Amino acid sequence: MDCNNFLNDEDILKDQNRIQPFVNAIIRNKHLFKDKVILDLNAGLGLLPILISRSGAKHIYAMKSHDHAQKILEQNNINNVTLNKKPIKDVELDCKVDIIISAWMGNMLFYHGNILELIAARDKYLNKDGLILPDKGQLYLQSIEDGEYCEQKMTFWDSVYGVNMKWMKHWVKHEPLLESIRENQLNSDPVLIYEVDLLKCTIEDLSFSNSYQIQINRQDFITGVIIWMKYSFTLTHLPINVIMGPSKSPFWKPVILYFNEEIPASKGDKLKGSLAMKFNSEDLIDIKLSVHTKQYHQIQYFRLN
Amino acid sequence: MDCNNFLNDEDILKDQNRIQPFVNAIIRNKHLFKDKVILDLNAGLGLLPILISRSGAKHIYAMKSHDHAQKILEQNNINNVTLNKKPIKDVELDCKVDIIISAWMGNMLFYHGNILELIAARDKYLNKDGLILPDKGQLYLQSIEDGEYCEQKMTFWDSVYGVNMKWMKHWVKHEPLLESIRENQLNSDPVLIYEVDLLKCTIEDLSFSNSYQIQINRQDFITGVIIWMKYSFTLTHLPINVIMGPSKSPFWKPVILYFNEEIPASKGDKLKGSLAMKFNSEDLIDIKLSVHTKQYHQIQYFRLN
Repeated sequence: MDCNNFLNDEDILKDQNRIQPFVNAIIRNKHLFKDKVILDLNAGLGLLPILISRSGAKHIYAMKSHDHAQKILEQNNINNVTLNKKPIKDVELDCKVDIIISAWMGNMLFYHGNILELIAARDKYLNKDGLILPDKGQLYLQSIEDGEYCEQKMTFWDSVYGVNMKWMKHWVKHEPLLESIRENQLNSDPVLIYEVDLLKCTIEDLSFSNSYQIQINRQDFITGVIIWMKYSFTLTHLPINVIMGPSKSPFWKPVILYFNEEIPASKGDKLKGSLAMKFNSEDLIDIKLSVHTKQYHQIQYFRLN
Repeated sequence: MDCNNFLNDEDILKDQNRIQPFVNAIIRNKHLFKDKVILDLNAGLGLLPILISRSGAKHIYAMKSHDHAQKILEQNNINNVTLNKKPIKDVELDCKVDIIISAWMGNMLFYHGNILELIAARDKYLNKDGLILPDKGQLYLQSIEDGEYCEQKMTFWDSVYGVNMKWMKHWVKHEPLLESIRENQLNSDPVLIYEVDLLKCTIEDLSFSNSYQIQINRQDFITGVIIWMKYSFTLTHLPINVIMGPSKSPFWKPVILYFNEEIPASKGDKLKGSLAMKFNSEDLIDIKLSVHTKQYHQIQYFRLN
């Protein structure tokens, strides 16, 4: 359910996992902000603009600001922040900026995020040699054993309050699940499958097709793969990495993709394949997963929409 | 975060608290449906239309149906259901109906619900002597002691990562909280503050101003009131009451309204006041709460938006 704007802001401010990396990127990196012009794409109540101002920035343009942000700025004696309630696409800035700060991330890096807004703002306003915070995103892939839960999910459709809904089973298997799993359900090490550099990427780069090879680390069945994300501030004095892992993802969830059939595997077995993601918009992502072993070959299609 | 349509349907079907009352209203009340024409405003995958068909209905018009609903109907040999993916407002039925079934409820009965859709469909299509399922909704009010949590919420704004956001305290107190509380935080019995009859209500009836009197049941402080809802199928053979109580509300949450200051009260004290709710739309509700004791008088305004 949607809550109002203000409650959302409160929830975000109270979610340390989301806010702390941004706060650290600012207050421990004053050298980046000193005398610079900054664009914050999602200012809310003004927390980050105020911290940026205190870090010595020359001026901050703060988009999507909350009604109360002006009063909070005043009570903190901040007078070099220009607030605007609108998103950047509806605003015309009269200068370029040195740094853009944006929580552009969504699930699977881009799903329901703000990446298109960031790319457009970057191309229009970011100075040559300007910075983006955070500036990198990565996807990792790992194999999982999740047979019991998968089976439960399937069995449900046999009889829903006495109604035969078996038809749904085929579709359910092809729905990406936005869920975490338990650590002990992972049966390979993670491999990096995709990396994006926000300073350079184009909209085309958000779609990709990359091969992977994972090594199975125990005698087990493989019911599918889990894809989880990391995003980073690599331009700060010390890099800040935020890992939304397979079993612990406080906010942006990993995605589970089930194979049509589980694959019996032994320790040391190699599983190869490729993952293709076609980014249609922030709300619509097509995913193609191929997997093969010596005995086994499969391609599957999924859609997040 | 939004998930896709289909996952929503799965979640709803798996939420027994939401589905079971509707299922019972159908399968234990075949006499209501026999040879009747039914309108289901939110058919999804077709569970309720199929159960209604099996209960002997003549025909079912099923709105907002899911892509897969047609196939599920076929696999259950149902051929007296007309599916439509659109909401009823975008459809023109060529006959009247005997029963409308709709999960019209939202938080505080109406917030983010579908009440306007139901009223419009009722006025246009429901036969004289037709039924609505569920047909009644009620709001109850109880006083609470919630000082510690309330204080925590306020203190947070003193320093948010070092930024003074005290300005927000005043506003936070006037935000209705969509939250449950623990049973032992209730310090009065509940009183009925509002009742709506879906067969008769007009849009004007969704706004109201009613007085209340509650008796405090222990020596305690009163930090505010909680308002929780009940909805009922009273036209079934046995009435089916679904209570979304103050401490246990599996889906639609109660609303907590804090007084400006907590009130010291003794066992047997009477707290009087009035609650006014102005319904602007399903997404916007203004609430005015007045409270008075011998020593104390206060009026507060809240908004759910």
